[in-house]
Amino acid sequence: MHVDADRLRADIEANAAFGAIETDEGRGRTVLAGTDASRRAREYFVERLRDAGLSVTVDAVGNVSGTWLPESADPDAAPVAAGSHLDSVPEGGIFDGPLGVYAALESVRAAQDAGLDPDRPISVVCFSEEEGQRFSNGLLGSSVAVGERTVEEALELEDDAGVALDAALDEIGFRGEGRLDAAGWDAWFELHVEQDTRLERVGATEGASAAEASSDETTSPVGVVTTITGITHCEVTVRGEANHAGATPMDDRTDALAAASEFVLDVEAAANDVVAASSETAVATVGSLTVRPNATNVVPGTVEMGVDVRDVSAESMETIVEAARASLALLERGRGVETEFSRPFDLEPTPMSDRLRRIAHRAGEGAGVDTVDLHSGAAHDTMHVAGATDAALLFAPSRDGVSHNPREWTDWSDCAAAARVLAGSIADAAGALP
Amino acid sequence: MHVDADRLRADIEANAAFGAIETDEGRGRTVLAGTDASRRAREYFVERLRDAGLSVTVDAVGNVSGTWLPESADPDAAPVAAGSHLDSVPEGGIFDGPLGVYAALESVRAAQDAGLDPDRPISVVCFSEEEGQRFSNGLLGSSVAVGERTVEEALELEDDAGVALDAALDEIGFRGEGRLDAAGWDAWFELHVEQDTRLERVGATEGASAAEASSDETTSPVGVVTTITGITHCEVTVRGEANHAGATPMDDRTDALAAASEFVLDVEAAANDVVAASSETAVATVGSLTVRPNATNVVPGTVEMGVDVRDVSAESMETIVEAARASLALLERGRGVETEFSRPFDLEPTPMSDRLRRIAHRAGEGAGVDTVDLHSGAAHDTMHVAGATDAALLFAPSRDGVSHNPREWTDWSDCAAAARVLAGSIADAAGALP
Repeated sequence: MHVDADRLRADIEANAAFGAIETDEGRGRTVLAGTDASRRAREYFVERLRDAGLSVTVDAVGNVSGTWLPESADPDAAPVAAGSHLDSVPEGGIFDGPLGVYAALESVRAAQDAGLDPDRPISVVCFSEEEGQRFSNGLLGSSVAVGERTVEEALELEDDAGVALDAALDEIGFRGEGRLDAAGWDAWFELHVEQDTRLERVGATEGASAAEASSDETTSPVGVVTTITGITHCEVTVRGEANHAGATPMDDRTDALAAASEFVLDVEAAANDVVAASSETAVATVGSLTVRPNATNVVPGTVEMGVDVRDVSAESMETIVEAARASLALLERGRGVETEFSRPFDLEPTPMSDRLRRIAHRAGEGAGVDTVDLHSGAAHDTMHVAGATDAALLFAPSRDGVSHNPREWTDWSDCAAAARVLAGSIADAAGALP
Repeated sequence: MHVDADRLRADIEANAAFGAIETDEGRGRTVLAGTDASRRAREYFVERLRDAGLSVTVDAVGNVSGTWLPESADPDAAPVAAGSHLDSVPEGGIFDGPLGVYAALESVRAAQDAGLDPDRPISVVCFSEEEGQRFSNGLLGSSVAVGERTVEEALELEDDAGVALDAALDEIGFRGEGRLDAAGWDAWFELHVEQDTRLERVGATEGASAAEASSDETTSPVGVVTTITGITHCEVTVRGEANHAGATPMDDRTDALAAASEFVLDVEAAANDVVAASSETAVATVGSLTVRPNATNVVPGTVEMGVDVRDVSAESMETIVEAARASLALLERGRGVETEFSRPFDLEPTPMSDRLRRIAHRAGEGAGVDTVDLHSGAAHDTMHVAGATDAALLFAPSRDGVSHNPREWTDWSDCAAAARVLAGSIADAAGALP
């Protein structure tokens, strides 16, 4: 199926103007939920949905959905839905989110242009507050759409200044009614930038051999996600004793930072062990570490750390978490520190729908675009949606794996290739293919 | 020689009122150089100097000196000087500094009361900005008194708000003229709280045996410092690559925090090795560590650390610094990080005067107070003065080694015992003993 690469690009570039920031390199934007930039991005999106003849709804938490109900479709049939999000992290890139939203809209326009007759309605969706930069830890709109969080709970969430989500949505005119219900969809597709280099590396290898064979322009492959990684966050505190760095002999110290350093290396080693032994997708990161009192001439008294553990295998995640706890127990005995451990955030690995993955690979063949199975190491709204209906996640390549940064980039030809795979997948799932 | 313990206590308690803070435990004060609390503390000090018949001078950087010129003394003879400082760290204790200042004054009053006839004048000194909390890294007044820093350089130093030392001293009426010159002294004594537990531990052992022999009250011993530790501060930066904690495989990371953790443990091990092999007074501390971007879900990109290395042996300090540099070189090769190393602060170990140490031990015998040789792991103004004239540093015990804290405490009986040793030492050095 033909997608209009220029029309897709024009939408993504128009959207990039909302919240655009000045930057030396690349192209950045800051679009936080419920801000003026968010209002402008949503208004443009609604306008484009209406231009394509879609009927638009906005739910109580600001999720926007535009539905194409062609004459061929049974209005009571569960629709096929696709989309992503339009908010960004502060000083984020222009593809993370918008590519999936506008490629979904382009898929509908392509189906219309091709004169397809889908059996099911097709919905194009923008979820609220995916990045979680203002009101939540992320994936807010999809959490409500699958019933994991109630509308009321979501609307009461406040930003750091005490402004609640309902007031922020009122302010920009995007507090609608009701609740977008993902359980009512027959299938869900999200196209997103990969934020990693695996597709780029596969593409480079294939591109090199293709370049030998022909001089035609080659595009990178599209990723078809097998499983979205599980994520656990652990909070760890190590308490030693703050003391004068000069007047406290080495054998009379309880140095919280020295103990924490052993912990950091133990967590790294545990992940490496799991990668070597059983699950090469496992990762563990001590991403944050804060020392108190943090003065050169004071033996550190307290260290707080944030640990991120992810894998497609829940079992290997547990292995790493257990190793982390064992490390703390050893440090209590060996170094006399006190430790605290909590696990405030825990998401199981989420396998994608086999049916939709087959459809996506088939769409790749139809579009002449290579497709590659891979896992997602990052969380996406699709993680929630998969709990309510069949869900699939497609990846377009990210240059150098850079994301959440104005240097985030996906070549326009790669955007178009990925959109062709998405359009083919949606058409197939909606029963529009011959 | 009899010192008046109550008069000494009354002065220290009166001084404790200036800058006093509310605290749940202990007794605290905040007296930063050039503040109103500092003005009140200095005015009271000057008043007490004059009450004792001393002639007061204030130099251009606010060093205060009161000199007793008895009829017995040659007015041209180099005086014996003693003192310490009256400023504090924020929320510091009431003994750190004031004990040495008022014990020096009490030593003069005790000599007067005893009708002693010293050959030399005796000066009681308060140095400016010892703690370095507002205008400098510390030891400001003594650095000028030994010519290591000019008056002009000192007066231009600014606090974080851009207020220069000269303006701050003008504000409180303590910018005098000229320069207090430590090279003009025949000898210098400073009594200070130990800020460590060594005297307390010795006292506990002796007290236990003494208690068996008699029921008299026992006092803790007084420390006679052999050497003030050398101090080096190193600043270290480890640069890896910040990356998505989920989307970056373990084998594709350059984690600055994991590398820094190896460094922290290498520094600790290097100090322990030196302690075991050659110099048990050696200490090394990674006291500060800052991670960027410091988010749980981001692989750390940069880590900055502050390292403090101290010993009475310059050679063992170099051994530890070399081990730290070797660790960084290994991390560059092994982990692919980039590192930076600088050494912005470097003070050689400072041996105390043998002559004055002998005088101090003799004064202990005369006063019936045990004296113990030990080193100082902390920096003191005496470190500077020792570059200009014979200098000695005495320690009174600190309960639990706590200092720079309202819980800092030295029993009044221990203050008096230490003041007796100081008074005897000053009288001896000034040629007042029979």
